[in-house]
Amino acid sequence: MVEFQRIALDVMGGDNAPDAILAGALRAVASDRGAPLQPERILLVGDQERIEAGLKELGGNPGFEIRHASQVVDMHDSPAAAMRSKPDSSIAIAVQAVKKGSAGAVVSMGNTGALVASATRGLGTLEGVRRPGIAVTFALGGHPMTVLDMGANIVPKPEHLLQYGMMGGIYARECLSCADPRIALLNIGEEPSKGTDLLKDAHAMLSAAPLNFVGNLEGNDMFQGKADVIVTDGFTGNVVLKLLEGFAGFLLGMVMGELKSHNAAYGGELLTNVQRNIDYAEYGGALLLGVSGVVVVGHGRSDARAVANALGLAARTLDAGLNERIVDGLANAQAE
Amino acid sequence: MVEFQRIALDVMGGDNAPDAILAGALRAVASDRGAPLQPERILLVGDQERIEAGLKELGGNPGFEIRHASQVVDMHDSPAAAMRSKPDSSIAIAVQAVKKGSAGAVVSMGNTGALVASATRGLGTLEGVRRPGIAVTFALGGHPMTVLDMGANIVPKPEHLLQYGMMGGIYARECLSCADPRIALLNIGEEPSKGTDLLKDAHAMLSAAPLNFVGNLEGNDMFQGKADVIVTDGFTGNVVLKLLEGFAGFLLGMVMGELKSHNAAYGGELLTNVQRNIDYAEYGGALLLGVSGVVVVGHGRSDARAVANALGLAARTLDAGLNERIVDGLANAQAE
Repeated sequence: MVEFQRIALDVMGGDNAPDAILAGALRAVASDRGAPLQPERILLVGDQERIEAGLKELGGNPGFEIRHASQVVDMHDSPAAAMRSKPDSSIAIAVQAVKKGSAGAVVSMGNTGALVASATRGLGTLEGVRRPGIAVTFALGGHPMTVLDMGANIVPKPEHLLQYGMMGGIYARECLSCADPRIALLNIGEEPSKGTDLLKDAHAMLSAAPLNFVGNLEGNDMFQGKADVIVTDGFTGNVVLKLLEGFAGFLLGMVMGELKSHNAAYGGELLTNVQRNIDYAEYGGALLLGVSGVVVVGHGRSDARAVANALGLAARTLDAGLNERIVDGLANAQAE
Repeated sequence: MVEFQRIALDVMGGDNAPDAILAGALRAVASDRGAPLQPERILLVGDQERIEAGLKELGGNPGFEIRHASQVVDMHDSPAAAMRSKPDSSIAIAVQAVKKGSAGAVVSMGNTGALVASATRGLGTLEGVRRPGIAVTFALGGHPMTVLDMGANIVPKPEHLLQYGMMGGIYARECLSCADPRIALLNIGEEPSKGTDLLKDAHAMLSAAPLNFVGNLEGNDMFQGKADVIVTDGFTGNVVLKLLEGFAGFLLGMVMGELKSHNAAYGGELLTNVQRNIDYAEYGGALLLGVSGVVVVGHGRSDARAVANALGLAARTLDAGLNERIVDGLANAQAE
C-alpha cells in the first residue's frame, strides 16, 4: 500500500465514537462488501488502548495500523480553541498524517469546524484554489446531486462561488460518473438579475466560464433533477443542509404516525427506503474540496454504515486523483 | 360595513385566476363555514365582465362589490415594469383601494414582487417601521410557527431583523393566540458568536430588546417547536420557503410510491393529513408586515380553499387591529 493512498480515520470523533467508528472500519474491509478496502489502507488515529480494546471486543484487528493521539476535540470546542489547546487531538494527528505523507486522506465524524480549520490550516489549499468549500452529495434515487459550499465559507466572494462550480463539476465527473455535469446557482429567482450582488456577480462569472452552467435554480427546483451541482454560499448551504435533515425527520415522523394509525406493518421498511434516497451518508458524507489532501467530513451521528461509506468515499476520491484533476481543471480554465 | 374593514381581492392574480379566486371568495362567505365573512366585506378587483360572467357560472353574486381593472400583471413581469407600464392592473387598483380608504386590506395570489413593491410604494411603511417583511405561518400540527422575512428584504440591516422579531412577536400574540411568543434567529450555530456579522449584530440587538428572545436556532431545530417566531434575512427566508415546498413534494412523492407498492388504500388521506400540517395556506398565506394596510401575499398555486383562508387571514388581521398594535409596540420598545 503506497502511503498516499492510505486513509487516516479519526476514531475519537462523533456521537457514537469510538465504537461505531471502529465498527465502520471493520465494515469497510469486510469481504462480503462490494468493494472492500484492504485493512492496511486504514490508519486508525486515537487513544491506542481504547482502540485495541475496542477492536478486541469486535473480533480482533484485521491489520489496521494504529497511531496514538492523547487528546479528543469535543463537539463544543471552538475550532480556534481546539487547534490551540489540543495539539495532540485525534483530528490534529490525523491531519498531520496527511501533511507528513503517511496518508492521503483524513476521515472524521467529529467537530466539523475543528476538522475544517485544522485541515485548511495544516494542509493548505490546492494550487489555484482561493477558498476550500464543503460539498455534500444527496442520493436522490440514483440521481446524485452535489451541493457546495455547506459551511466552510459563510461570506464568500463571487470568485469563490465560481471555483465551487468548477470543483463541484470536476468532482461530479471524476467521482460520480456524471459525464457533463450541469452546474446551477441557488437563488431566489431564475433571472440573472435576481438575488444579492454576490449572486449577480457569480452568475456572470459562471456564465463566462468553460462550464455547463444552467443558471439560477430556486429551492423548490432543487429536487427536480435539474442540476448535478448546486453552488451556494456557506451560510445558506449550512442552513439548507440542517433544514432538510430536520424537516425530513418531522415529515417522516408524521407519516409514521399515520401509518401506525392504519396498523401498516411496513412502516420501518418504507422509512428506510425513503431515507436512503435523501441521506447524504449514502455517499459517505461531505468532502472538503480545495485543500491539499482528501478530507471527508462525516456526520456526528454516523453509524457503522455511514463510517464505512465515508471511508469508501475517501478511497474513491484518492483513486480518482480528484485533487490533481482539480488543479489541472482550474489551470486550464485560467488559460482559456 | 365600515370601509377600512373591507378586503380588496385581486381576482386576476394567480395560476388559477380568475375562477379559483372567485370560488374562494364564495367559499369565504359560505354560511356553512366556521366564521363566514359578509359578502359586502369583499371588494373584487379585476376585469368586470369576466368577474360577472364567472360569478354567474358559480351561482350568482351574493353581494360582492366589483371594481374594474383593465390590466393584469403576469407572473413574469418585473415589479418595476409592472408598476410603470400597468397602472391600471388589478394589483395596482386593489392597493389604491386601500390607499384611498375604501378598503383596509388587499389580498392577491399574483406576482409577489409586484404586490410587495406596489404595496410598499403605494401605502408606505407604518410609523416607526424601517423595512417591511413578509411573514409566513406554518401550521405544524397546532403549533403555528411564523418565519420572516420571506423575501421582501434580501440584504437587511441588523435593525431590520430586530424589527422583524418585534413585528412577528406582535403578530403571533394578536393573531395566533400565542401569549408570550418565543423569538429566535435562524443561524448556523447556537452560540451568539456564530454566523455573519449581520447575525451577530442582530443577536445582540434582539437580546437587548424587550422580547422573549430565545437565541439562535439551527435549521434542524426549526421543526421542533422551540420557537414561535423565526427571524431571518429575506434571501435565506425565500430559499427556505421554496426548499420546504419542493422537498415536501419530493419526499411525499416517494412515500406515495412506497404506499402504492403496498397497495395501501389510504394514501390520499395520509397525504392530505400530512400536507395540512406543513402547508402555509392553512394560515392563509403570507402577510407583508410593516406597511400601512393589511397585505396578504397568497401562493400563485392557490385553490379556492387557500383563497378563502387568505381572506380569513386578512379579516382576522384587520379585526385584531394588528397594525395599530405594531405601531404602539415599536413606540413602546423605543421608549424603554
